[in-house]
Amino acid sequence: MLSNKNKKDITIATIGSHSALQILKGAKDEGFKTLVVCVKGREKPYKSFNVADEIIIIDSYKDFFKVEKELLEKNCVIIPHASFIEYVGIDNVKDLKIPYFGNKNILCWESNRDKQREWLKDAGIRIPKIFDNPKDIDRPVIVKFHGAAGGKGYFLAKNEEDFKKKISFHPESKQYVIQEYIIGVPMYAHYFYSPLTNEIEIMSFDIRYESNVDSLGRISARDQMALPGVDPSYVVVGNVPVVVRESLLPEMFDMGEKVVEHSKKISPPGLFGPFCLEGVLTPEMHFYVFEISARIVAGTNPYINGSPYTALKYDVPMSTGRRIAREIKNAIEQGKLDLLLE
Amino acid sequence: MLSNKNKKDITIATIGSHSALQILKGAKDEGFKTLVVCVKGREKPYKSFNVADEIIIIDSYKDFFKVEKELLEKNCVIIPHASFIEYVGIDNVKDLKIPYFGNKNILCWESNRDKQREWLKDAGIRIPKIFDNPKDIDRPVIVKFHGAAGGKGYFLAKNEEDFKKKISFHPESKQYVIQEYIIGVPMYAHYFYSPLTNEIEIMSFDIRYESNVDSLGRISARDQMALPGVDPSYVVVGNVPVVVRESLLPEMFDMGEKVVEHSKKISPPGLFGPFCLEGVLTPEMHFYVFEISARIVAGTNPYINGSPYTALKYDVPMSTGRRIAREIKNAIEQGKLDLLLE
Amino acid sequence: MLSNKNKKDITIATIGSHSALQILKGAKDEGFKTLVVCVKGREKPYKSFNVADEIIIIDSYKDFFKVEKELLEKNCVIIPHASFIEYVGIDNVKDLKIPYFGNKNILCWESNRDKQREWLKDAGIRIPKIFDNPKDIDRPVIVKFHGAAGGKGYFLAKNEEDFKKKISFHPESKQYVIQEYIIGVPMYAHYFYSPLTNEIEIMSFDIRYESNVDSLGRISARDQMALPGVDPSYVVVGNVPVVVRESLLPEMFDMGEKVVEHSKKISPPGLFGPFCLEGVLTPEMHFYVFEISARIVAGTNPYINGSPYTALKYDVPMSTGRRIAREIKNAIEQGKLDLLLE
Repeated sequence: MLSNKNKKDITIATIGSHSALQILKGAKDEGFKTLVVCVKGREKPYKSFNVADEIIIIDSYKDFFKVEKELLEKNCVIIPHASFIEYVGIDNVKDLKIPYFGNKNILCWESNRDKQREWLKDAGIRIPKIFDNPKDIDRPVIVKFHGAAGGKGYFLAKNEEDFKKKISFHPESKQYVIQEYIIGVPMYAHYFYSPLTNEIEIMSFDIRYESNVDSLGRISARDQMALPGVDPSYVVVGNVPVVVRESLLPEMFDMGEKVVEHSKKISPPGLFGPFCLEGVLTPEMHFYVFEISARIVAGTNPYINGSPYTALKYDVPMSTGRRIAREIKNAIEQGKLDLLLE
Repeated sequence: MLSNKNKKDITIATIGSHSALQILKGAKDEGFKTLVVCVKGREKPYKSFNVADEIIIIDSYKDFFKVEKELLEKNCVIIPHASFIEYVGIDNVKDLKIPYFGNKNILCWESNRDKQREWLKDAGIRIPKIFDNPKDIDRPVIVKFHGAAGGKGYFLAKNEEDFKKKISFHPESKQYVIQEYIIGVPMYAHYFYSPLTNEIEIMSFDIRYESNVDSLGRISARDQMALPGVDPSYVVVGNVPVVVRESLLPEMFDMGEKVVEHSKKISPPGLFGPFCLEGVLTPEMHFYVFEISARIVAGTNPYINGSPYTALKYDVPMSTGRRIAREIKNAIEQGKLDLLLE
Repeated sequence: MLSNKNKKDITIATIGSHSALQILKGAKDEGFKTLVVCVKGREKPYKSFNVADEIIIIDSYKDFFKVEKELLEKNCVIIPHASFIEYVGIDNVKDLKIPYFGNKNILCWESNRDKQREWLKDAGIRIPKIFDNPKDIDRPVIVKFHGAAGGKGYFLAKNEEDFKKKISFHPESKQYVIQEYIIGVPMYAHYFYSPLTNEIEIMSFDIRYESNVDSLGRISARDQMALPGVDPSYVVVGNVPVVVRESLLPEMFDMGEKVVEHSKKISPPGLFGPFCLEGVLTPEMHFYVFEISARIVAGTNPYINGSPYTALKYDVPMSTGRRIAREIKNAIEQGKLDLLLE
């Protein structure tokens, strides 16, 4: 917990990866001091782009807790991102003593496949059907193995027979989910919910750039059939900016609101700050949500200098990273910082 | 018709959809008051992004004419977009009493497949060949059904025999066009023509993001062959920014000029304001135009804060929406507003 | 060689194509006069976008040397781009009397397939394997014909037998290279190296938009198999903005540094100014480099108004074109212009 005196002299800190450039740049633009914790050899971008007032080097991400005391002394607030959670370890987040921007408890809803599904479903979000029994497969499905890095081995099947044949090639894989395969284009919607104003904002949208699946289409069908091993994997290596059809925005706002409202019931005080709904848009213009990320996503990185949407609302280039810093600044001014930190 | 007094106190208005955010934001940035007409339940984006000084809610788009008198009293100028035309009804546009930015008569050239084709062809634009008789098919063709929402059912054929086999699966569809299938990448060129300066400007380019066709390439050829019903549809759900090879720009300017010049003959005073040439670029770098949109297109939405091209020419972030408002402002200053409004 | 007096009154010049808009706009923004040499009929973009203080029209690119004296008298510095090199002729570049931004000698390393490969390999960059003998083919390969415009005829092969069958369809083509086919997504990394600060900067990234290969995925596998002649070509007709996964940036910086450091050995004083590493990112997140461009690439054109990366470092919209002009301005201020010009 920060003392009142310290609340006016915060340093915004994070781990150097994922969306740290944006978080740190945004914090500087809002007037905060900034600090980044980097593993040795990975500090170059933070130096070159000059976004960190201080860089702390550690030998391995496991050493994060070794520098926590130093961060506490420096009056840091941690902005978590997916790599932060991964490196620190999801089970260790609750033990962090350093003030943390966000609702720690929401992590257990987000990190568990079934609980996340329950959250989305009960919030009234359209999600793909899950088949518990292969006998029930009545439409194209995608079979996803748990823990498969980058979606390696994921396969499509059209019916029970097809599923059985293909699953037999994976005798070692016992844990998988059979999910309705929705044919549509990927779309990632970036939100920000402010507990200070109780308002949902749409920040931007992106399309993930995934290796190798986004290059498959560049290989002719003939060559794909002829070559061995041209199977899709889904490793995110970049992000492409996109805007959504304007007539879809009311539904997009609605979904963001539903997800936040339901989170208040299942994990008070609920989800706040940046989050992302990750799905596909079908030709019927239905948005099926596959996943929710309860924090800043790397898909906001194309918008370090603001997005077409934030340009509508703000008179400065407003990235999601900067929006976080502004929320903290607003909270300090209103004496409500405790609402944002755990 | 606006009185001289009223010409100085215009409110820019449109229907809340398509590119209204950009139109309204641009108008505010140029100093106009703004008003948006929304169907109940679809006003959220216009509130959240704070682009409208006033929001009028109607129960259904059919009720637009019920509020026309109110808009007239408020000294509104309507900026049409594709959804405006669709909702008001193309046949009703000529009956609008409210001042309308654009040439209403050009709509009958744009909305009729054959007349549009005649316009483009006579202007000297490269367009795909149409086969009136299946016997003449001598290259790959795409068969497009009239009124097929999102291009549902469109199919490719390589010759007469192939065509006959495939058309037999569509016994109910009598109305179709057999069009040369040009293999190349889609490209949408956004223009603005000012009758005040007689100058064509290139505003930006985009690639439509279409469901499901832009996800087909992410399904391996093997899986596409195996799954039932993986057929392309072409529903636009978003737009991706792109720039064109610089050596193509002279031809792009030239095409814009030809289209405008010919429009002066067929529909005086001709096309003005924003328009879009929609086509594909072949490996020989020929631009085949499939369609012209005679007004602002949603493809300009990625550039709400300006495009790489408008950044060259303007010292403020110039969207197409803002360019419209600036044209109106310039016309007012020059006492030439009547040139722009019908 | 510029006199000391003239060093303060430089005009930035280039040929009107490729990335000239950006180069000229950037030069104007840094306070320089600008001049563009255009072939007759291709001057429109430079007029319309108002980036050139002067436009010199020539009948053909071969006439460039006819106007060189005029450019010398006007105290011009030439900024080369790929089209400039192509039009002037790579063998003629060394004979240019007009001050040239860049290291002319590096051209002979860049323009020769084998020397470029040696440069990249010896710099420690990951490059695809080359098979000198078809017998050695032990993985998928792509066979590239020398001088094939737009990659026409390039084919994939999975083994020696497959190669032999497919090469037999090209009896006229004796010159080709058999290159390991890396399955991954294309990525183009744009750098700037300053000999004034000895610092590598990452400016931006792009994805080339290539006709027709980037539309193949929009044709269903079934149709691709059925249609004749649906073979990929790789003609760049545009560029799409992208950001790279942040955790890849340290490696990206590292590669840029290695390439520059090694260039100092093979072609003193080495590569400087803008350059680009062109490659693919695999699902293992390895970046395989296919090619290096030793100057500004058209992939920077989406960022005429700055990129997400330059927004981090600069407080003005910093394009690569503007970065070149700023380097020249900095050199003039430091009395080190001779470092940059040949």
